Amino acid sequence: MNVRLSHIAIANPQISAVTNQLKALALEIETTHDVAQEKVKAAMVKTEISSHFRIELLEPLGDDSPISKFLEKRPAGGIHHLCFEVDQLDPWVKRLEEAQMQVLPPGIRTGARGRVLFIHPKSFGGVLVELEEIHTKS
Amino acid sequence: MNVRLSHIAIANPQISAVTNQLKALALEIETTHDVAQEKVKAAMVKTEISSHFRIELLEPLGDDSPISKFLEKRPAGGIHHLCFEVDQLDPWVKRLEEAQMQVLPPGIRTGARGRVLFIHPKSFGGVLVELEEIHTKS
Repeated sequence: MNVRLSHIAIANPQISAVTNQLKALALEIETTHDVAQEKVKAAMVKTEISSHFRIELLEPLGDDSPISKFLEKRPAGGIHHLCFEVDQLDPWVKRLEEAQMQVLPPGIRTGARGRVLFIHPKSFGGVLVELEEIHTKS
Repeated sequence: MNVRLSHIAIANPQISAVTNQLKALALEIETTHDVAQEKVKAAMVKTEISSHFRIELLEPLGDDSPISKFLEKRPAGGIHHLCFEVDQLDPWVKRLEEAQMQVLPPGIRTGARGRVLFIHPKSFGGVLVELEEIHTKS
């Protein structure tokens, strides 16, 4: 009785409004279909998956943790962000700027596992997105 | 400049409080570590990934769509649920009951791609979780 992660569902007022934002991340909609019985339009987006993929649980250390702020609004917890790894982070700064996608200040920062940046939720359909630089070549 | 999904981060007031719920889903914490500079404790959870994995975008069809209700609280959109596929759904009903995890009524239902059930967010650290029966053998 094992489980396999099958999809992450993102609710959005209008799928067509996020098409350019997906494209900026090199993600593309594969199929779109209406599910009348569930009263939704669903678009399936292909993405590669990192060989390091994990579900990450985050617990705040102290009241001034960014996670504490999130939990003030959602005390039971919830999904905080999605993270995509990239080979080189620097070219993404210009690419996101060209796509008019807002990066959270201060831009590229050094996280626990290396260099990261965060895309503002308003630039990705309400979802906070992290880009993480992973050096796969030694 | 491609991206690879690296992690899904779930914020929770207390990671230890969801350990049994992870275990019920046959998920396990691999490592736990404090990230002092980001003021979080992070636990990495291993999961298998379906070969059918997708990011799913959901747009409401009509005001009485379940997605409309979600968007009333989060007008810009956001992550709605995670879905795990399983080989057989029936044994999970008992297993979730034994783990005192609440299933949304009416229990097993027939979705667009087959039989599914939803675990109440309060039984999985604030996250709505779908289990989907996928028949991989013909």
